[in-house]
Amino acid sequence: MIFPSSLVENAVNEFSRLPGIGKKTALRLVLHLLKQDEAYVERFSETIRKMRREVRFCRECRNISDGEVCSICSNPARKKEMICVVESIRDVIAIENTQQYNGIYHVLGGVISPLDGIGPDNLNIQSLTSRVNSLHATEVIMAISPTIEGDTTIFYISKKLKDSGVRITTIARGIAFGGELEYADEMTLGRSLSNRLPLEQFNTGHA
Amino acid sequence: MIFPSSLVENAVNEFSRLPGIGKKTALRLVLHLLKQDEAYVERFSETIRKMRREVRFCRECRNISDGEVCSICSNPARKKEMICVVESIRDVIAIENTQQYNGIYHVLGGVISPLDGIGPDNLNIQSLTSRVNSLHATEVIMAISPTIEGDTTIFYISKKLKDSGVRITTIARGIAFGGELEYADEMTLGRSLSNRLPLEQFNTGHA
Repeated sequence: MIFPSSLVENAVNEFSRLPGIGKKTALRLVLHLLKQDEAYVERFSETIRKMRREVRFCRECRNISDGEVCSICSNPARKKEMICVVESIRDVIAIENTQQYNGIYHVLGGVISPLDGIGPDNLNIQSLTSRVNSLHATEVIMAISPTIEGDTTIFYISKKLKDSGVRITTIARGIAFGGELEYADEMTLGRSLSNRLPLEQFNTGHA
Repeated sequence: MIFPSSLVENAVNEFSRLPGIGKKTALRLVLHLLKQDEAYVERFSETIRKMRREVRFCRECRNISDGEVCSICSNPARKKEMICVVESIRDVIAIENTQQYNGIYHVLGGVISPLDGIGPDNLNIQSLTSRVNSLHATEVIMAISPTIEGDTTIFYISKKLKDSGVRITTIARGIAFGGELEYADEMTLGRSLSNRLPLEQFNTGHA
Protein backbone atom coordinates (compact mmCIF):
# COMPACT_ATOMS: atom_id res chain seq x y z
CA MET A 1 0.00 0.00 0.00
CA ILE A 2 1.27 3.47 -0.91
CA PHE A 3 0.65 6.32 1.53
CA PRO A 4 1.11 10.03 0.83
CA SER A 5 2.34 10.58 4.39
CA SER A 6 4.98 8.57 6.24
CA LEU A 7 3.41 9.58 9.58
CA VAL A 8 0.15 7.96 8.53
CA GLU A 9 2.00 5.00 7.06
CA ASN A 10 3.81 4.36 10.36
CA ALA A 11 0.57 4.56 12.33
CA VAL A 12 -1.15 2.15 9.90
CA ASN A 13 1.75 -0.26 10.23
CA GLU A 14 1.54 -0.15 14.03
CA PHE A 15 -2.19 -0.84 14.02
CA SER A 16 -1.93 -3.62 11.45
CA ARG A 17 0.53 -5.44 13.72
CA LEU A 18 -2.32 -6.01 16.20
CA PRO A 19 -4.03 -9.41 15.99
CA GLY A 20 -6.93 -9.57 13.54
CA ILE A 21 -6.33 -6.10 12.10
CA GLY A 22 -5.32 -5.87 8.45
CA LYS A 23 -4.00 -2.89 6.50
CA LYS A 24 -7.45 -1.68 5.40
CA THR A 25 -8.92 -1.79 8.89
CA ALA A 26 -5.77 -0.12 10.24
CA LEU A 27 -6.17 2.71 7.72
CA ARG A 28 -9.80 3.15 8.73
CA LEU A 29 -8.79 3.42 12.40
CA VAL A 30 -5.98 5.88 11.64
CA LEU A 31 -8.21 8.12 9.51
CA HIS A 32 -10.80 8.00 12.29
CA LEU A 33 -8.19 9.16 14.83
CA LEU A 34 -7.07 11.89 12.41
CA LYS A 35 -10.60 13.29 12.45
CA GLN A 36 -10.75 13.45 16.26
CA ASP A 37 -9.31 16.39 18.14
CA GLU A 38 -5.78 16.25 19.42
CA ALA A 39 -6.78 15.92 23.09
CA TYR A 40 -8.79 12.78 22.30
CA VAL A 41 -5.85 11.12 20.57
CA GLU A 42 -3.46 12.21 23.34
CA ARG A 43 -5.75 10.54 25.87
CA PHE A 44 -6.05 7.40 23.72
CA SER A 45 -2.31 7.05 23.39
CA GLU A 46 -1.62 7.93 27.03
CA THR A 47 -4.22 5.44 28.34
CA ILE A 48 -2.53 2.60 26.45
CA ARG A 49 0.97 3.64 27.50
CA LYS A 50 -0.11 3.99 31.14
CA MET A 51 -1.89 0.64 31.06
CA ARG A 52 1.22 -1.19 29.82
CA ARG A 53 3.49 0.67 32.23
CA GLU A 54 1.40 0.37 35.39
CA VAL A 55 -0.64 -2.81 35.17
CA ARG A 56 0.73 -5.40 37.55
CA PHE A 57 0.09 -9.08 38.03
CA CYS A 58 -1.41 -10.04 41.37
CA ARG A 59 1.24 -11.49 43.71
CA GLU A 60 -1.29 -14.12 44.80
CA CYS A 61 -3.21 -15.30 41.73
CA ARG A 62 -1.31 -13.74 38.76
CA ASN A 63 -4.46 -11.98 37.62
CA ILE A 64 -4.09 -8.45 36.20
CA SER A 65 -4.19 -5.88 38.95
CA ASP A 66 -3.82 -2.16 39.64
CA GLY A 67 -1.88 -2.88 42.83
CA GLU A 68 0.27 -5.62 44.28
CA VAL A 69 -2.75 -7.77 45.15
CA CYS A 70 -5.75 -7.81 42.79
CA SER A 71 -9.22 -6.57 43.66
CA ILE A 72 -10.53 -10.14 43.84
CA CYS A 73 -7.85 -11.52 46.20
CA SER A 74 -8.11 -8.46 48.41
CA ASN A 75 -11.91 -8.49 48.56
CA PRO A 76 -12.95 -9.76 52.06
CA ALA A 77 -16.33 -10.88 50.65
CA ARG A 78 -14.75 -13.52 48.40
CA LYS A 79 -14.38 -17.06 49.73
CA LYS A 80 -10.64 -17.69 50.04
CA GLU A 81 -11.06 -21.43 50.49
CA MET A 82 -12.43 -21.92 46.97
CA ILE A 83 -9.85 -21.53 44.18
CA CYS A 84 -10.80 -21.53 40.50
CA VAL A 85 -7.86 -22.53 38.29
CA VAL A 86 -7.92 -20.89 34.83
CA GLU A 87 -5.61 -20.72 31.86
CA SER A 88 -5.58 -16.96 31.30
CA ILE A 89 -6.76 -13.56 32.43
CA ARG A 90 -9.41 -13.66 29.71
CA ASP A 91 -11.01 -16.64 31.47
CA VAL A 92 -11.08 -14.71 34.78
CA ILE A 93 -12.95 -11.89 33.03
CA ALA A 94 -15.34 -14.38 31.37
CA ILE A 95 -16.16 -16.08 34.69
CA GLU A 96 -16.46 -12.76 36.55
CA ASN A 97 -19.00 -11.65 33.98
CA THR A 98 -21.26 -14.63 34.77
CA GLN A 99 -21.56 -13.19 38.31
CA GLN A 100 -21.99 -16.80 39.52
CA TYR A 101 -18.68 -17.25 41.29
CA ASN A 102 -17.67 -15.92 44.68
CA GLY A 103 -14.31 -17.59 45.29
CA ILE A 104 -10.83 -16.57 44.18
CA TYR A 105 -8.74 -17.47 41.12
CA HIS A 106 -5.42 -18.90 40.14
CA VAL A 107 -4.13 -17.99 36.67
CA LEU A 108 -1.81 -20.65 35.22
CA GLY A 109 -0.61 -18.57 32.28
CA GLY A 110 -1.27 -21.38 29.78
CA VAL A 111 -1.68 -25.15 29.66
CA ILE A 112 0.85 -27.96 29.43
CA SER A 113 1.64 -28.33 25.75
CA PRO A 114 4.82 -30.28 24.92
CA LEU A 115 4.40 -29.46 21.21
CA ASP A 116 4.70 -25.75 22.03
CA GLY A 117 7.49 -26.41 24.49
CA ILE A 118 5.33 -25.54 27.50
CA GLY A 119 5.94 -27.83 30.46
CA PRO A 120 4.60 -27.66 34.04
CA ASP A 121 7.58 -25.53 35.11
CA ASN A 122 6.54 -22.76 32.68
CA LEU A 123 3.18 -22.41 34.41
CA ASN A 124 2.16 -21.09 37.84
CA ILE A 125 1.57 -24.57 39.23
CA GLN A 126 4.13 -24.54 42.07
CA SER A 127 2.47 -21.51 43.64
CA LEU A 128 -0.94 -23.20 43.39
CA THR A 129 0.05 -26.05 45.71
CA SER A 130 1.44 -23.62 48.28
CA ARG A 131 -1.69 -21.43 48.05
CA VAL A 132 -3.95 -24.45 48.57
CA ASN A 133 -2.06 -25.19 51.79
CA SER A 134 -1.71 -21.65 53.14
CA LEU A 135 -5.35 -20.74 52.39
CA HIS A 136 -6.64 -24.08 53.75
CA ALA A 137 -8.59 -24.44 50.52
CA THR A 138 -11.53 -26.83 50.55
CA GLU A 139 -12.17 -26.90 46.79
CA VAL A 140 -10.15 -26.35 43.63
CA ILE A 141 -12.30 -25.86 40.54
CA MET A 142 -10.60 -26.61 37.22
CA ALA A 143 -12.08 -24.17 34.71
CA ILE A 144 -9.83 -25.19 31.85
CA SER A 145 -10.71 -25.58 28.17
CA PRO A 146 -11.71 -29.16 27.24
CA THR A 147 -8.78 -29.84 24.92
CA ILE A 148 -6.14 -32.57 25.13
CA GLU A 149 -3.67 -30.02 26.55
CA GLY A 150 -6.30 -28.80 29.02
CA ASP A 151 -7.08 -32.34 30.19
CA THR A 152 -3.36 -33.11 30.56
CA THR A 153 -2.99 -30.02 32.72
CA ILE A 154 -5.96 -31.00 34.89
CA PHE A 155 -4.53 -34.47 35.50
CA TYR A 156 -1.08 -33.10 36.25
CA ILE A 157 -2.42 -30.58 38.76
CA SER A 158 -4.78 -33.06 40.43
CA LYS A 159 -1.84 -35.42 40.95
CA LYS A 160 0.18 -32.59 42.51
CA LEU A 161 -2.69 -31.68 44.83
CA LYS A 162 -3.51 -35.24 45.88
CA ASP A 163 -1.60 -35.08 49.16
CA SER A 164 -3.31 -31.87 50.26
CA GLY A 165 -6.66 -33.70 50.37
CA VAL A 166 -8.47 -30.75 48.75
CA ARG A 167 -11.63 -31.54 46.78
CA ILE A 168 -11.00 -31.13 43.06
CA THR A 169 -13.84 -30.44 40.62
CA THR A 170 -14.05 -29.46 36.96
CA ILE A 171 -16.63 -27.24 35.33
CA ALA A 172 -19.45 -29.15 33.65
CA ARG A 173 -18.99 -30.09 30.03
CA GLY A 174 -21.92 -30.82 27.82
CA ILE A 175 -24.31 -29.30 25.36
CA ALA A 176 -24.09 -25.49 25.42
CA PHE A 177 -27.15 -23.53 26.47
CA GLY A 178 -29.25 -22.93 23.33
CA GLY A 179 -27.26 -25.55 21.41
CA GLU A 180 -28.92 -28.31 19.44
CA LEU A 181 -28.18 -31.98 20.02
CA GLU A 182 -27.86 -32.88 16.36
CA TYR A 183 -25.02 -30.39 15.83
CA ALA A 184 -23.00 -31.42 18.90
CA ASP A 185 -19.83 -33.42 18.18
CA GLU A 186 -19.65 -37.04 19.37
CA MET A 187 -17.15 -36.30 22.16
CA THR A 188 -19.36 -33.63 23.69
CA LEU A 189 -22.58 -35.59 23.29
CA GLY A 190 -20.92 -38.79 24.59
CA ARG A 191 -19.53 -37.04 27.67
CA SER A 192 -22.80 -35.28 28.38
CA LEU A 193 -24.53 -38.67 28.33
CA SER A 194 -22.06 -40.35 30.66
CA ASN A 195 -22.13 -37.32 33.00
CA ARG A 196 -25.92 -37.14 33.06
CA LEU A 197 -27.57 -35.53 36.09
CA PRO A 198 -30.54 -36.65 38.19
CA LEU A 199 -33.48 -34.34 37.51
CA GLU A 200 -33.39 -32.96 41.09
CA GLN A 201 -30.01 -31.41 40.32
CA PHE A 202 -31.14 -30.07 36.97
CA ASN A 203 -30.85 -26.30 36.81
CA THR A 204 -32.09 -24.72 33.61
CA GLY A 205 -30.41 -21.41 34.29
CA HIS A 206 -33.71 -19.72 33.43
CA ALA A 207 -34.84 -17.17 36.02
CA MET B 1 -18.16 -6.22 31.38
CA ILE B 2 -16.34 -6.45 34.71
CA PHE B 3 -12.56 -5.98 34.75
CA PRO B 4 -10.23 -6.76 37.64
CA SER B 5 -8.08 -3.73 36.74
CA SER B 6 -9.25 -0.20 36.04
CA LEU B 7 -6.14 0.44 33.92
CA VAL B 8 -7.13 -2.41 31.61
CA GLU B 9 -10.75 -1.30 31.69
CA ASN B 10 -9.82 2.21 30.55
CA ALA B 11 -7.68 0.88 27.72
CA VAL B 12 -10.49 -1.47 26.60
CA ASN B 13 -12.92 1.45 26.64
CA GLU B 14 -10.58 3.58 24.50
CA PHE B 15 -10.13 0.81 21.92
CA SER B 16 -13.83 0.00 21.80
CA ARG B 17 -14.58 3.61 20.89
CA LEU B 18 -12.83 3.04 17.55
CA PRO B 19 -15.12 2.23 14.61
CA GLY B 20 -15.90 -1.46 14.14
CA ILE B 21 -14.23 -2.52 17.40
CA GLY B 22 -16.44 -4.02 20.12
CA LYS B 23 -15.61 -4.76 23.75
CA LYS B 24 -14.41 -8.31 23.08
CA THR B 25 -12.08 -7.30 20.26
CA ALA B 26 -10.84 -4.37 22.35
CA LEU B 27 -10.02 -6.76 25.20
CA ARG B 28 -8.12 -9.02 22.81
CA LEU B 29 -6.05 -6.05 21.57
CA VAL B 30 -5.34 -4.85 25.11
CA LEU B 31 -4.26 -8.30 26.32
CA HIS B 32 -2.05 -8.57 23.24
CA LEU B 33 -0.39 -5.24 24.08
CA LEU B 34 0.03 -6.36 27.70
CA LYS B 35 2.07 -9.33 26.48
CA GLN B 36 4.44 -7.16 24.41
CA ASP B 37 7.42 -5.50 26.02
CA GLU B 38 7.11 -1.96 27.27
CA ALA B 39 9.25 -0.44 24.49
CA TYR B 40 6.91 -1.87 21.86
CA VAL B 41 3.84 -0.34 23.50
CA GLU B 42 5.67 2.98 24.03
CA ARG B 43 6.44 3.08 20.31
CA PHE B 44 2.85 2.13 19.41
CA SER B 45 1.40 4.89 21.54
CA GLU B 46 4.01 7.47 20.49
CA THR B 47 3.53 6.73 16.76
CA ILE B 48 -0.19 7.43 17.05
CA ARG B 49 0.30 10.58 19.11
CA LYS B 50 2.96 11.89 16.74
CA MET B 51 0.79 11.09 13.72
CA ARG B 52 -2.15 13.08 15.07
CA ARG B 53 0.07 15.96 16.19
CA GLU B 54 2.22 16.32 13.09
CA VAL B 55 0.19 15.20 10.10
CA ARG B 56 -0.79 18.19 8.02
CA PHE B 57 -3.17 18.69 5.17
CA CYS B 58 -1.57 19.73 1.89
CA ARG B 59 -2.04 23.46 1.23
CA GLU B 60 -2.76 22.66 -2.41
CA CYS B 61 -4.93 19.54 -2.55
CA ARG B 62 -5.96 18.94 1.11
CA ASN B 63 -4.44 15.47 1.00
CA ILE B 64 -2.65 14.23 4.13
CA SER B 65 0.96 15.33 4.13
CA ASP B 66 4.13 15.32 6.22
CA GLY B 67 4.92 18.89 5.16
CA GLU B 68 3.06 21.96 3.96
CA VAL B 69 2.71 20.54 0.43
CA CYS B 70 2.12 16.81 -0.03
CA SER B 71 4.50 14.40 -1.73
CA ILE B 72 2.21 14.17 -4.77
CA CYS B 73 1.79 17.92 -5.36
CA SER B 74 5.51 18.51 -4.83
CA ASN B 75 6.59 15.65 -7.13
CA PRO B 76 7.91 17.19 -10.39
CA ALA B 77 7.15 13.94 -12.25
CA ARG B 78 3.38 14.28 -11.71
CA LYS B 79 1.31 16.06 -14.41
CA LYS B 80 0.02 19.25 -12.80
CA GLU B 81 -2.50 19.92 -15.58
CA MET B 82 -4.53 16.81 -14.72
CA ILE B 83 -6.55 17.05 -11.50
CA CYS B 84 -8.43 14.11 -10.04
CA VAL B 85 -11.27 15.23 -7.76
CA VAL B 86 -11.99 12.80 -4.90
CA GLU B 87 -14.20 12.74 -1.85
CA SER B 88 -11.64 11.72 0.77
CA ILE B 89 -8.04 10.85 1.54
CA ARG B 90 -9.00 7.18 1.45
CA ASP B 91 -9.85 7.58 -2.26
CA VAL B 92 -6.43 9.15 -2.93
CA ILE B 93 -4.78 6.11 -1.35
CA ALA B 94 -7.02 3.73 -3.32
CA ILE B 95 -6.18 5.42 -6.65
CA GLU B 96 -2.47 5.68 -5.81
CA ASN B 97 -2.42 1.95 -5.19
CA THR B 98 -3.67 1.24 -8.73
CA GLN B 99 -0.41 2.86 -9.96
CA GLN B 100 -2.37 3.94 -13.04
CA TYR B 101 -2.57 7.68 -12.41
CA ASN B 102 0.15 10.24 -12.85
CA GLY B 103 -1.67 13.53 -12.27
CA ILE B 104 -2.46 15.36 -9.04
CA TYR B 105 -5.48 15.29 -6.73
CA HIS B 106 -8.04 17.55 -5.15
CA VAL B 107 -9.70 16.28 -1.96
CA LEU B 108 -13.20 17.70 -1.46
CA GLY B 109 -13.62 16.47 2.10
CA GLY B 110 -17.06 14.98 1.39
CA VAL B 111 -19.93 15.30 -1.08
CA ILE B 112 -22.90 17.64 -1.23
CA SER B 113 -25.55 16.11 1.01
CA PRO B 114 -28.36 18.43 2.10
CA LEU B 115 -29.78 15.72 4.39
CA ASP B 116 -26.52 15.73 6.38
CA GLY B 117 -26.33 19.53 6.24
CA ILE B 118 -23.33 19.50 3.87
CA GLY B 119 -23.55 22.19 1.22
CA PRO B 120 -20.98 23.26 -1.40
CA ASP B 121 -19.51 25.81 1.02
CA ASN B 122 -18.53 23.04 3.44
CA LEU B 123 -16.34 21.41 0.78
CA ASN B 124 -13.07 22.45 -0.88
CA ILE B 125 -14.79 23.48 -4.10
CA GLN B 126 -13.80 27.17 -4.16
CA SER B 127 -10.11 26.27 -4.11
CA LEU B 128 -10.64 23.78 -6.96
CA THR B 129 -11.75 26.47 -9.39
CA SER B 130 -8.76 28.65 -8.51
CA ARG B 131 -6.38 25.68 -8.87
CA VAL B 132 -7.83 24.80 -12.29
CA ASN B 133 -7.01 28.35 -13.40
CA SER B 134 -3.60 28.76 -11.77
CA LEU B 135 -2.36 25.34 -12.93
CA HIS B 136 -3.81 25.79 -16.45
CA ALA B 137 -5.43 22.38 -15.99
CA THR B 138 -6.48 20.60 -19.18
CA GLU B 139 -8.55 17.85 -17.53
CA VAL B 140 -10.50 17.40 -14.32
CA ILE B 141 -11.34 13.77 -13.56
CA MET B 142 -14.31 13.25 -11.24
CA ALA B 143 -13.49 10.11 -9.22
CA ILE B 144 -16.53 10.32 -7.00
CA SER B 145 -18.73 7.49 -5.72
CA PRO B 146 -21.75 6.81 -7.96
CA THR B 147 -24.40 7.81 -5.44
CA ILE B 148 -27.08 10.48 -5.68
CA GLU B 149 -24.95 12.80 -3.51
CA GLY B 150 -21.89 12.03 -5.62
CA ASP B 151 -23.71 12.79 -8.86
CA THR B 152 -25.08 16.03 -7.40
CA THR B 153 -21.55 17.04 -6.47
CA ILE B 154 -20.24 16.24 -9.94
CA PHE B 155 -22.95 18.36 -11.59
CA TYR B 156 -22.37 21.25 -9.20
CA ILE B 157 -18.60 21.26 -9.78
CA SER B 158 -18.92 20.89 -13.54
CA LYS B 159 -21.22 23.92 -13.62
CA LYS B 160 -18.67 25.90 -11.56
CA LEU B 161 -15.87 24.91 -13.94
CA LYS B 162 -17.81 25.55 -17.14
CA ASP B 163 -16.28 28.99 -17.75
CA SER B 164 -12.71 27.71 -17.38
CA GLY B 165 -13.15 25.56 -20.49
CA VAL B 166 -11.36 22.62 -18.84
CA ARG B 167 -12.27 19.14 -20.05
CA ILE B 168 -14.30 17.30 -17.40
CA THR B 169 -14.43 13.50 -17.28
CA THR B 170 -15.73 10.95 -14.81
CA ILE B 171 -14.26 7.52 -14.04
CA ALA B 172 -15.96 4.66 -15.91
CA ARG B 173 -18.90 3.01 -14.25
CA GLY B 174 -19.93 -0.47 -15.18
CA ILE B 175 -19.52 -4.09 -14.27
CA ALA B 176 -16.64 -4.59 -11.85
CA PHE B 177 -13.68 -6.69 -12.95
CA GLY B 178 -14.48 -10.31 -12.10
CA GLY B 179 -18.15 -9.46 -11.53
CA GLU B 180 -20.93 -11.44 -13.12
CA LEU B 181 -23.61 -9.82 -15.28
CA GLU B 182 -26.52 -11.63 -13.66
CA TYR B 183 -25.70 -10.23 -10.21
CA ALA B 184 -25.25 -6.61 -11.32
CA ASP B 185 -28.04 -4.23 -10.35
CA GLU B 186 -30.19 -2.69 -13.11
CA MET B 187 -28.69 0.81 -12.74
CA THR B 188 -25.14 -0.47 -13.20
CA LEU B 189 -26.00 -2.83 -16.02
CA GLY B 190 -28.13 -0.19 -17.76
CA ARG B 191 -25.40 2.44 -17.54
CA SER B 192 -22.73 0.04 -18.71
CA LEU B 193 -24.88 -0.72 -21.76
CA SER B 194 -25.49 2.90 -22.65
CA ASN B 195 -21.80 3.72 -22.08
CA ARG B 196 -20.59 0.79 -24.21
CA LEU B 197 -17.14 1.07 -25.79
CA PRO B 198 -15.96 0.23 -29.32
CA LEU B 199 -13.79 -2.89 -29.20
CA GLU B 200 -10.68 -0.90 -30.23
CA GLN B 201 -10.87 0.97 -26.93
CA PHE B 202 -11.47 -2.19 -24.93
CA ASN B 203 -8.77 -2.77 -22.35
CA THR B 204 -9.10 -5.95 -20.35
CA GLY B 205 -6.62 -4.84 -17.73
CA HIS B 206 -4.93 -8.24 -18.09
CA ALA B 207 -1.17 -8.00 -18.57
